[in-house]
Amino acid sequence: METSNFIGELIGTAVLILLGDGVVANVLLKGSKGENAGWIAITAGWAFAVMSGIFVAQKFGSSAAHLNPAVTVAMAVKTGDWSNVVPFIGAQLIGSFIGAVLVWLVYLPHWSITEDKGAKLGIFATAPAVRHTTGNILSEVIGTMVLILASSSFYSMPESGYGPLLVGFLVWSIGLSLGGPTGYAINPARDLGPRIAHALLPISGKGTNDWGYAWIPIVGPIIGGVIAALMMNAFHV
Amino acid sequence: METSNFIGELIGTAVLILLGDGVVANVLLKGSKGENAGWIAITAGWAFAVMSGIFVAQKFGSSAAHLNPAVTVAMAVKTGDWSNVVPFIGAQLIGSFIGAVLVWLVYLPHWSITEDKGAKLGIFATAPAVRHTTGNILSEVIGTMVLILASSSFYSMPESGYGPLLVGFLVWSIGLSLGGPTGYAINPARDLGPRIAHALLPISGKGTNDWGYAWIPIVGPIIGGVIAALMMNAFHV
Amino acid sequence: METSNFIGELIGTAVLILLGDGVVANVLLKGSKGENAGWIAITAGWAFAVMSGIFVAQKFGSSAAHLNPAVTVAMAVKTGDWSNVVPFIGAQLIGSFIGAVLVWLVYLPHWSITEDKGAKLGIFATAPAVRHTTGNILSEVIGTMVLILASSSFYSMPESGYGPLLVGFLVWSIGLSLGGPTGYAINPARDLGPRIAHALLPISGKGTNDWGYAWIPIVGPIIGGVIAALMMNAFHV
Amino acid sequence: METSNFIGELIGTAVLILLGDGVVANVLLKGSKGENAGWIAITAGWAFAVMSGIFVAQKFGSSAAHLNPAVTVAMAVKTGDWSNVVPFIGAQLIGSFIGAVLVWLVYLPHWSITEDKGAKLGIFATAPAVRHTTGNILSEVIGTMVLILASSSFYSMPESGYGPLLVGFLVWSIGLSLGGPTGYAINPARDLGPRIAHALLPISGKGTNDWGYAWIPIVGPIIGGVIAALMMNAFHV
Repeated sequence: METSNFIGELIGTAVLILLGDGVVANVLLKGSKGENAGWIAITAGWAFAVMSGIFVAQKFGSSAAHLNPAVTVAMAVKTGDWSNVVPFIGAQLIGSFIGAVLVWLVYLPHWSITEDKGAKLGIFATAPAVRHTTGNILSEVIGTMVLILASSSFYSMPESGYGPLLVGFLVWSIGLSLGGPTGYAINPARDLGPRIAHALLPISGKGTNDWGYAWIPIVGPIIGGVIAALMMNAFHV
Repeated sequence: METSNFIGELIGTAVLILLGDGVVANVLLKGSKGENAGWIAITAGWAFAVMSGIFVAQKFGSSAAHLNPAVTVAMAVKTGDWSNVVPFIGAQLIGSFIGAVLVWLVYLPHWSITEDKGAKLGIFATAPAVRHTTGNILSEVIGTMVLILASSSFYSMPESGYGPLLVGFLVWSIGLSLGGPTGYAINPARDLGPRIAHALLPISGKGTNDWGYAWIPIVGPIIGGVIAALMMNAFHV
Repeated sequence: METSNFIGELIGTAVLILLGDGVVANVLLKGSKGENAGWIAITAGWAFAVMSGIFVAQKFGSSAAHLNPAVTVAMAVKTGDWSNVVPFIGAQLIGSFIGAVLVWLVYLPHWSITEDKGAKLGIFATAPAVRHTTGNILSEVIGTMVLILASSSFYSMPESGYGPLLVGFLVWSIGLSLGGPTGYAINPARDLGPRIAHALLPISGKGTNDWGYAWIPIVGPIIGGVIAALMMNAFHV
Repeated sequence: METSNFIGELIGTAVLILLGDGVVANVLLKGSKGENAGWIAITAGWAFAVMSGIFVAQKFGSSAAHLNPAVTVAMAVKTGDWSNVVPFIGAQLIGSFIGAVLVWLVYLPHWSITEDKGAKLGIFATAPAVRHTTGNILSEVIGTMVLILASSSFYSMPESGYGPLLVGFLVWSIGLSLGGPTGYAINPARDLGPRIAHALLPISGKGTNDWGYAWIPIVGPIIGGVIAALMMNAFHV
């Protein structure tokens, strides 16, 4: 793997998480101008976060611009080439951690005036609406399958310059439609990197890191990605 | 018809219904993160569901990507070639049923905690705001006419790669503007397949299937599609 | 002028008004599924209405696709060719009347259950938030100037296939930003045709047609269009 | 610098501020049709304001279409060519002042019926949710870094005709995700020009201009732009 791919994945994932966790902070933190702006704001914010992260990743040299270990593993299963898996996932985790630190800095005055510890964790990590291991895993598996099947279809077009915009709208779709039960991690790095940041950062009045749930947004998306890859190979598309 | 068209229509319609019925589930089911997100969320969700479904259908081999029996019939009337009608509609119905089953799985923990039986049916099938046979039929006829006239205009452009995105925005438009009286089925498969799924699935605390209304979202869209096709032929466009 | 231009303007404006007045009906009429969906829904609905109307007008043969007398007059001032002005405006007025009739039909069961006469007029015609002749005219003049300056810029690009989508986003912008005082007619046909329809249709429980205000959404947009055209000529752009 | 660049920057920035400050007026002024439309409306309005401003700037001859001193300075740092900095920033400030005057005119009847002096200033100038110099500066620095890194990536694509649309979505993203603490000036002209207009215009019942805060939306964005430029040079992208 070339260095530029590592840098691109790292900076792109940092932008993804800065903008993605940022919108949750804006909606949940007390006194913020976007407080209580609702699910349409959160899902739009994540959509444009993904679009922006992919464009920045491409600019800094990652032609793949996965920004997501589930995508990286799915592409490895699809192509049989596993050489990029470890460095890509490493870059994605470092980038997601940096993005989470930047969110903490952007919203610096708002942590101490927000009492709700669950809201503060919810900015960094996903949590289920109802704890239900089978249901929660199923949500993450199916959401990630849709992510990978549909985003692959964008990039098989000749005019792929606007692929990142379409991926943004797809992520908006997944958030609106499949995000209800688990908050749609659909990306292990999106959940794990910021959860580690929540654990390490001196966030005023923070609570637990909910490590008991942390495996679901890792395992669910990986399973979903692998199923999508096998399905594409089965149909030769 | 080639197999790939059948597969494409089936998988594309499954994605359409998974994401389309999914957003209604997110807004209506108790405890879901998108609960009460409102009409803008529902219509945006269906818009991106259609966009994603068309892209996936194209990827899996359906160059037509109708995902809608009213579109299939309209194109048969327009071109005089009825050979694809039966297999396409079959694929669309199977796909819409599968999509509805996936919605049930994604929202698995939420069915038993939601009391409103009408809301649960409303995730799968459309229902009129006011029961009024003439008015309800007219809504579906006119909505489907707009769908077919406008979406045909997107695909007559030379740069048709982003047609599915434009169809998504068109469906957003129809939902916002014409969806008030009947919930804009504008697609017989969108209503019938999931209504059958609602009847067959072991959904916790479900109520009636409202079969008495089921013919309107079938007949209305077919009439609208045929009128649109005849109109395009009359003006040679 | 060729017949196809007349037909295109007529059908395109009918679609524009059907979808544009339709979203207001959805938000204002009692019992409608989009009731109280708010300003973001209304402005999004008009945005996609304009996008869809332009595409349909182009399909049915109007390469210009003005759908708006203020645009038609502005283009005549800009180019010095006034030959299309009368037939285009005629087609736009007929189309806008037809679109308004279709809105009445789509929402047929909802007129009698809605008591607010002002809301019913507001679906067809614009009304000022505060009656203030100077201020209301200024709003319409400036809104239409922006419409014409910015939409002209989209069509000077080489890849103009997506111009209608950009015009849609521009109209969303004008609605969000400049629509507060008068409801942004920015199009004389958009106001006059449906106001005539409101006067003639047997709408259950309708009130006044507010003819006293009707000249402002005609004169304001025409002035704004002429200023924009003179400005483009002055700067040779 | 050619005259057309000056004119383009001036008119483009006027359109940017007219549409940008306009949406805040619509949401905050009493009686306006968009009153209380919320953060999603404000951020969408600014997004399309930026898109429209860039297109208009390009049409009137500014191929660069910065509309933002932080972008102009960042490009000077990146390229080493400072010749455009003074005239561009001059044009941007004049344009932003004119845009603010137009907002005052569009909303003419609404100033006297709105009591909240802070809301009236907030239409023209940004204000922090929580006054916190370090935190507020950090928000503006990081928001502007993202603006410049991501928007640069759009214009390095071959099909750059839709770059302004993508910049619009990026600004929507920054507003949703990073706008909570300071209202995302991310542009010194966007804040200073309209703040001067607020000071000079005879706005009915206006209050203070809050000059004490005015340096933060100037210094923060400039720092963010310079960091982004240095980062791009460091990575040779």
